[in-house]
Amino acid sequence: MLGAAERQNQSLLCVGLDPDPAKFPAHLRGDASRIYDFCAAIVEATADTVIAFKPQIAYFAAHRAEDQLERLMAHMRAVAPQVPVILDAKRGDIGSTAEQYAIEAFERYGADAVTLSPFMGFDSVQPYLKYEGKGAFLLCRTSNPGGDDLQNQRLATVDGQPLLYEHVARLAQGPWNLNGQLGLVVGATYPAEIERVRELAPTLPLLIPGVGAQGGDAVATVRAGYRRQGDATTGPVIVNSSRAILYASSGDDFAAAARSEALRTRNVLEAARG
Amino acid sequence: MLGAAERQNQSLLCVGLDPDPAKFPAHLRGDASRIYDFCAAIVEATADTVIAFKPQIAYFAAHRAEDQLERLMAHMRAVAPQVPVILDAKRGDIGSTAEQYAIEAFERYGADAVTLSPFMGFDSVQPYLKYEGKGAFLLCRTSNPGGDDLQNQRLATVDGQPLLYEHVARLAQGPWNLNGQLGLVVGATYPAEIERVRELAPTLPLLIPGVGAQGGDAVATVRAGYRRQGDATTGPVIVNSSRAILYASSGDDFAAAARSEALRTRNVLEAARG
Repeated sequence: MLGAAERQNQSLLCVGLDPDPAKFPAHLRGDASRIYDFCAAIVEATADTVIAFKPQIAYFAAHRAEDQLERLMAHMRAVAPQVPVILDAKRGDIGSTAEQYAIEAFERYGADAVTLSPFMGFDSVQPYLKYEGKGAFLLCRTSNPGGDDLQNQRLATVDGQPLLYEHVARLAQGPWNLNGQLGLVVGATYPAEIERVRELAPTLPLLIPGVGAQGGDAVATVRAGYRRQGDATTGPVIVNSSRAILYASSGDDFAAAARSEALRTRNVLEAARG
Repeated sequence: MLGAAERQNQSLLCVGLDPDPAKFPAHLRGDASRIYDFCAAIVEATADTVIAFKPQIAYFAAHRAEDQLERLMAHMRAVAPQVPVILDAKRGDIGSTAEQYAIEAFERYGADAVTLSPFMGFDSVQPYLKYEGKGAFLLCRTSNPGGDDLQNQRLATVDGQPLLYEHVARLAQGPWNLNGQLGLVVGATYPAEIERVRELAPTLPLLIPGVGAQGGDAVATVRAGYRRQGDATTGPVIVNSSRAILYASSGDDFAAAARSEALRTRNVLEAARG
């Protein structure tokens, strides 16, 4: 599904839907009952510029807006059936609890993929893999300052003494990836680390947040994550931008401004893959 | 708040609220609109036997039952104002997203504490610490088979080469615990590991799932986690049991059966702390 959207829209851009009513344009500002309206306008304005959409569930949950997220998911399927939707939920639990979260993501919301934390290990990932055709992106190396606290520690007890995030990348490319459904989340702040993850996980889709408002360098990001190897290429990179697109204008023209910013970012990313 | 409930109810038992309509007693079975009714009956029957309640949010989210969780949280505050409620959500995200999850847990649902994943590091924990009087339990060592995949790896680059879970325990006892709001989640399957965590984090509350249906040994668990040291004791242990109590009977007497099982478990735990 990623491949189809990438070809049709010629894009590596993912628009992150992190709706914060306090940042909405003036005529919607502060009104949590308009989250759907705001996001739907963004989706309609950018649907032909993206490889994926990524709603962040926390922004809906904080505002008692699960019903609006359900409607938005349905609207995305209607407006852009070829564009996969990654539900950014970073769930991480086991057994029957993980099964409940998988029901939430894939059945209730109809997401095509979900983000997960790998901290609890393989049995916290496995329940999601029972859904054929659905994907799971595991947190691997995140670009926040605290990302170092655990992810950047070297493991004495694993072959080759990888850093923790390298260990996660290997597990996801190898033994955990039973049916080819896994991808990785890798922050854009450190292109050398994206390059390293790509080396360890050549075929996995990489979801890369942190371009745009978070300041990652879009060109360096794509070059680090996307490689042509002879006739083949590596797995896709999916470069997320949220705030820079959502809040490109605080006026009535917010949707048009979002489209302009999305097109600009898409073009930068396309130029980078060359 | 934990201390007050522990003294008043003389209990280390936490009842986990993981409502699965497929396991409900016959007259409620399969009816997701009765999640509140089922849980409220359990809460009323066990409120004077527990140190805490722990609703697992996945079971509500899978059934579009956030409104029932809101009502249940309010009901717990009304029925048992002295009993803290730990929202088991295992959130793990950063910055403004973590702030949204904190709003969800503490403002929307009014939880007294929340469970978190430490994988993204300190800045994924810090936003919760801004809520005075609220707590956060970090996943440390979980008892599922996959718990070894990351948590049981030895870190070459940290002083003393701790295992990853030991590193988390030290961070939570030390530099991360700005205002004394942190606790740890430690599985009951390996008492030696609870003992090790207690050594590294003498004052932190330990939330210990895995007793009851998951088969951990309640006595060994309490002895490993709860120590009198002269006149003082270590931080509290909070021993969770969910299914063994919730589904103690599949008949109309489910609430009375839950109470019996809760009392039995509480007594076993009390005897163990001696």
